[in-house]
Amino acid sequence: MVDQPLWEQIGSSFVQHYYQMFDSDRSQLGSIYIDASCLTWEGQQFQGKRAIVEKLTGLPFTKIAHSITAQDHQPTPDCCILSMVVGQLKADDDPIMGFHQSFILKNINDAWVCTNDMFRLAIHNFG
Amino acid sequence: MVDQPLWEQIGSSFVQHYYQMFDSDRSQLGSIYIDASCLTWEGQQFQGKRAIVEKLTGLPFTKIAHSITAQDHQPTPDCCILSMVVGQLKADDDPIMGFHQSFILKNINDAWVCTNDMFRLAIHNFG
Repeated sequence: MVDQPLWEQIGSSFVQHYYQMFDSDRSQLGSIYIDASCLTWEGQQFQGKRAIVEKLTGLPFTKIAHSITAQDHQPTPDCCILSMVVGQLKADDDPIMGFHQSFILKNINDAWVCTNDMFRLAIHNFG
Repeated sequence: MVDQPLWEQIGSSFVQHYYQMFDSDRSQLGSIYIDASCLTWEGQQFQGKRAIVEKLTGLPFTKIAHSITAQDHQPTPDCCILSMVVGQLKADDDPIMGFHQSFILKNINDAWVCTNDMFRLAIHNFG
């Protein structure tokens, strides 16, 4: 097996960690954001660890499970990592829905944090 | 009407320009990439203006039309712009498909170029 590039390892570890935490106890997600972090959730914008965690914990479901269909990772010219995830989620008793999410990860003081996070449900309205 | 933040204006102008160029003559897309640019197209990785344009012009359809369902833009801590697009496309006589694409835009010598580009068809395989 060929070794994965470092950004792939970091990106995929982050993605695994993020959704595990989201599905088990999303109030803990504050640990991955910083005060400069931006979240755009279905078009609504939030900035900073506190505002982001408030939004995520306030989402109107009690149980959620994500499953990942595809994930891509790239190094950026500023030594960050761009990650894009395509997946499905099931919230409470709602039908399964597609989603996509993009992250930028940045290394600050030897830790990888999420500076940018964008989430959209995959609503395509065909036909 | 409230003025949009600058990153929204730049991001949405880029998105409009990109898909107009893609749909009319995608061999011209080289103008938006640099040699450090990365493209991940359905999981396949390409680096550099030449390799990216070669991939895009070699895609096996002659006519394509994109329409955008939603787009989000954020400033990054390194003065770049992260853009995420959700949309639909119709290639030749194929059925309409959903897609999503993420870009990082960077200002180099007073021009905005695309340093990172990730594209995935929205294939969710429900059920």
